[in-house]
Amino acid sequence: MSFRKNSGIGFLSTLSGGCRHGRPYARSHLGSNNRNMSTSSKIKVELDSSNGIAVMKFQNPPVNSMGLDFLTEFSISLEKLELDKSCRGVILTSAQPRIFSAGLDIMDMYGTGPEHCGAFWKAFQDIWLKLYSYSKLTIAAINGSGFAGGCLMAMCCDYRIMADDPRYAIGLNETQLGIVAPFWLKDTLVNIVGHRTTELSLQMGIMYSAPEALKIGLVDQLVPEDKVLSTATNTLAKWLTIPGHAQEISKSMMRKPTVDKLLANREADVKNFVDFVTKDSNQKYLEMYLAALKKKKA
Amino acid sequence: MSFRKNSGIGFLSTLSGGCRHGRPYARSHLGSNNRNMSTSSKIKVELDSSNGIAVMKFQNPPVNSMGLDFLTEFSISLEKLELDKSCRGVILTSAQPRIFSAGLDIMDMYGTGPEHCGAFWKAFQDIWLKLYSYSKLTIAAINGSGFAGGCLMAMCCDYRIMADDPRYAIGLNETQLGIVAPFWLKDTLVNIVGHRTTELSLQMGIMYSAPEALKIGLVDQLVPEDKVLSTATNTLAKWLTIPGHAQEISKSMMRKPTVDKLLANREADVKNFVDFVTKDSNQKYLEMYLAALKKKKA
Amino acid sequence: MSFRKNSGIGFLSTLSGGCRHGRPYARSHLGSNNRNMSTSSKIKVELDSSNGIAVMKFQNPPVNSMGLDFLTEFSISLEKLELDKSCRGVILTSAQPRIFSAGLDIMDMYGTGPEHCGAFWKAFQDIWLKLYSYSKLTIAAINGSGFAGGCLMAMCCDYRIMADDPRYAIGLNETQLGIVAPFWLKDTLVNIVGHRTTELSLQMGIMYSAPEALKIGLVDQLVPEDKVLSTATNTLAKWLTIPGHAQEISKSMMRKPTVDKLLANREADVKNFVDFVTKDSNQKYLEMYLAALKKKKA
Repeated sequence: MSFRKNSGIGFLSTLSGGCRHGRPYARSHLGSNNRNMSTSSKIKVELDSSNGIAVMKFQNPPVNSMGLDFLTEFSISLEKLELDKSCRGVILTSAQPRIFSAGLDIMDMYGTGPEHCGAFWKAFQDIWLKLYSYSKLTIAAINGSGFAGGCLMAMCCDYRIMADDPRYAIGLNETQLGIVAPFWLKDTLVNIVGHRTTELSLQMGIMYSAPEALKIGLVDQLVPEDKVLSTATNTLAKWLTIPGHAQEISKSMMRKPTVDKLLANREADVKNFVDFVTKDSNQKYLEMYLAALKKKKA
Repeated sequence: MSFRKNSGIGFLSTLSGGCRHGRPYARSHLGSNNRNMSTSSKIKVELDSSNGIAVMKFQNPPVNSMGLDFLTEFSISLEKLELDKSCRGVILTSAQPRIFSAGLDIMDMYGTGPEHCGAFWKAFQDIWLKLYSYSKLTIAAINGSGFAGGCLMAMCCDYRIMADDPRYAIGLNETQLGIVAPFWLKDTLVNIVGHRTTELSLQMGIMYSAPEALKIGLVDQLVPEDKVLSTATNTLAKWLTIPGHAQEISKSMMRKPTVDKLLANREADVKNFVDFVTKDSNQKYLEMYLAALKKKKA
Repeated sequence: MSFRKNSGIGFLSTLSGGCRHGRPYARSHLGSNNRNMSTSSKIKVELDSSNGIAVMKFQNPPVNSMGLDFLTEFSISLEKLELDKSCRGVILTSAQPRIFSAGLDIMDMYGTGPEHCGAFWKAFQDIWLKLYSYSKLTIAAINGSGFAGGCLMAMCCDYRIMADDPRYAIGLNETQLGIVAPFWLKDTLVNIVGHRTTELSLQMGIMYSAPEALKIGLVDQLVPEDKVLSTATNTLAKWLTIPGHAQEISKSMMRKPTVDKLLANREADVKNFVDFVTKDSNQKYLEMYLAALKKKKA
């Protein structure tokens, strides 16, 4: 089914101004000194043994939407790197042009039934739990737009470098689609941009252009698009000179209370999502959304 | 008793620089397409059936001070609009020139005894509880200065647009008058401007000029005075195109914990206020304050 | 032992760019109208009876490192001034050139054994508890760099005025030295600069130049170095015209929850520090640090 390929949660938003580009993508060139650790097709992992820096490239065309398969592979890749002592830090980036990730795949929520929806949501929780409390340093090299779950992946990192292009946008646009961000996604945003900006952001489902995202602190730095990955690598290399044990404890001290909230409410959060998304009215909404996607493609 | 007319909590502060204007007021012109729903004399409510936007205009001359009568009418108006399905959003603004509201009316605290003070405070709590958790979208069209309780009304809204005039000021100036803002007012400010700015703001009772208020995030946008109401209307109309159910749940997710804190401590908070304000030393303070007001008027 | 004189926690950091100065210090000139209340040699206290403002000058050459002796004297001085009704506000500043304070003295942690380390940490907790909940107004006149515990002293004040010189830096650089800031130090920073800036700051042990510190809100105001003390005095004098009772309650309302967290966990926090610092690996770290200091001196 062809919808699967571009049914990320944020894709439709691109119609209404979030980002304005839809040309075909091209594979990026890969350096030759890297060890390719990738066993999956949706995420390419390269670990540079010279500096301990792993680059995870999302390559799930056309918009890196996060279906159950993607989430499962992502989770496994994160786990492998966490256990790999030769890996000291991880960079998340996209192999697709102009898009970091369009977020969760609608096709996993539409007409799939409560059981699949529950498994899907658990996998999404799992990514957040792993990435937000990751023991190694992480940097998001945001070389395109990031919608909803795509924005979340970036928010979980220790630092966010975005391509300095106002056509790229990032944010939690769930509300625009009639969906509500879960509390732990809200907490993650509050921890980055504060209470007030989060409130406005979630109420209106705002997508911020790269310069706006910098201004509110949603990303930390803007650089020219062709410097995103190299800047991330250089920044990470510099940070790896700082005592890692103290870094890790400091990170945990900041994030543990937020992580513990979901751990204490994980089942209820799954039930909450499943009840919401399988409701007739909300399935209807997704149907309309997919119809709009189909029309856009045509 | 003529004090009633200008005994708002922040009025005297205008002497010491908060805002610098005191000319007579004029009624603003009202559009002709609106349905006047007002049954009260202190608050004029107009609902535009074409877009579902209600405008509440405070018309309690000269400074929209909030006495028990005003609070009661305000509460009833808010309730009516919340139940009215044709109303989709509410704009708060002032019919008085140069002043949004001077805040709580001192005359309800001076020499009125514990019972009246308790009822007064409960009515104030009630306004906050209703407005801060209002199910419909709200925008403050701040077309003049807002002191203490007047600032609070604006802070409860989902968005704040203020007249771009440095002579207008907004803030919680209670400390300047020897009074302490209650914890829920403090919480509301923390949610908007953060912990540090709140600390300084409350310790010194700072009134921020419109440009300063924008800088610290106490208001969201400045526009020329004659565009405040139209900008609020246009903004609200735009927001009403976003799925309302997701908006409402998002708002509740952000504000419920703050609201629940007062709900769990409402009686203690009333007692705390009554004990404080009826103390001889504090009644003395209010007496001095009213004497200063009288002198100013003369 | 000569290390004692410059073994503050942040001293070495000055090598790696935090601040770039190391010339010999000179005593600052003292005004003639002040009553010298100092009974100690490490902190000079002058109370100006004309305005009730006390100035505490750290004079522990060369870098105002905070050993157990310093902390004890500091605590006693704070207590005396709190009980002294003629004192209405306190300014903290340094008598040493170019340095506010280098923070805790490493010599109190290296080779001193668990008992001494425990007493030392308790004394440090005590300073924070006293200063963060001080009933009188406090202003930090930061006339040089402030590292770790030195930064904390400034963060506890009600307002921070720093010398406008990019060579001066301020921050919590513990992580750079392999040490982790305790939770209450973290909480204090969160209360000032918010969650995100704190996270980055602690993970990387960032020292901010004066202009950077202003930008993130770690300090409130920059003035020319020779105006730091006079600006602090004038600001404090102005604030003393505001009702003090309301000021004090407002301050307590903002800070009490943070203070209560340490009060409820004081013993565990001491144990945590002692266990960490007396570990062989961490003692080794301090040894290397002291060797680097020695080399720098040579």
